[in-house]
Amino acid sequence: MPKITSDLTITLDGCAAGAGQSREHPFGDMDPDRLHAWMFDHAEENTEEKEAFAGCGAYVMGRNMFGPDRGEWDLDWRGWWGPNPPFQVPTFVLGHRPRPSVEMEGGTVYHFVTDGIEAALERARDAAGERDVKIGGGVSTVRQYLQAGLIDELHFALSPVLLGQGEAMFAGLDLPALGYRVVESTASEMATHVVVG
Amino acid sequence: MPKITSDLTITLDGCAAGAGQSREHPFGDMDPDRLHAWMFDHAEENTEEKEAFAGCGAYVMGRNMFGPDRGEWDLDWRGWWGPNPPFQVPTFVLGHRPRPSVEMEGGTVYHFVTDGIEAALERARDAAGERDVKIGGGVSTVRQYLQAGLIDELHFALSPVLLGQGEAMFAGLDLPALGYRVVESTASEMATHVVVG
Repeated sequence: MPKITSDLTITLDGCAAGAGQSREHPFGDMDPDRLHAWMFDHAEENTEEKEAFAGCGAYVMGRNMFGPDRGEWDLDWRGWWGPNPPFQVPTFVLGHRPRPSVEMEGGTVYHFVTDGIEAALERARDAAGERDVKIGGGVSTVRQYLQAGLIDELHFALSPVLLGQGEAMFAGLDLPALGYRVVESTASEMATHVVVG
Repeated sequence: MPKITSDLTITLDGCAAGAGQSREHPFGDMDPDRLHAWMFDHAEENTEEKEAFAGCGAYVMGRNMFGPDRGEWDLDWRGWWGPNPPFQVPTFVLGHRPRPSVEMEGGTVYHFVTDGIEAALERARDAAGERDVKIGGGVSTVRQYLQAGLIDELHFALSPVLLGQGEAMFAGLDLPALGYRVVESTASEMATHVVVG
């Protein structure tokens, strides 16, 4: 059975992105290099985590993860990731306004979904076929899917830094009450990796 | 220079104690054995952490850490820790109502302080002399001292479990804005240990 999964890097104080997102600063005030240091500095021990980012059949992401503009679409904006994005599969972007799909190099096609998180997931499941669907982020999108009980497995990489302000992953979110628990946990030098299911 | 320190075990979702504290359940809904598993299951690798609990010259704790009763003191209640508590030094309990000091076996003397966190710390510093003072907990007491900038060093043991509901360590607390940052982090099999200063 294909799974619905999500991978998040969070800080010690439970933030997954900084406040003040802009075109120049997709993670807001947070330094993404510091947050994701575990992924790049200790590449060998993190092969497994990096593979988790690959191999899925479709992505779902919130509009803020796709771009910094709000309101009407800026049709010149085609995501943070340049002409050849890392997704390489159909990628469903949540939003309130319709927009034609955008085909990128390497297999990524951005589809814009206006009828809610369940409809977006349904389309992603269809597109993924036998493969998993990944809820890419950001935090508020992942929280919405969790609250709806639609995520099978969450992968947290906890980075030992403090952010103070930012998008709070856990505030007001009672994961045990939603049926989630920690099923696996391993520690590397730069991060603690926890699987919640 | 003696330091003001605090040691806290927290969950992945940033809780340090459960809701629903009672005489039978000092940590509320949280299972303290699971939370503190790192300390007992892997004793050898945690000698350093356990030593951190010893060696200080005085403790400060909030009333809820001392006992489950609220309002007027139950004078028969002498803490959760029996006749010979582990503190073995003067221990200052914050509260709103005066109560005579209580001398226990082994060197622990409970003093009850009604004139606020700064007064309690002042008395603890005097009692500790050349040794460190530890802010024992609970979460709301530690948060008050952090917000007042009165803690020099925080030791977190992050236990990879989810609690969902409980006393939130970080909600609304911007530690970087208060001048704190992560100065050290090490991972063991059962917990990630982070020093914030």
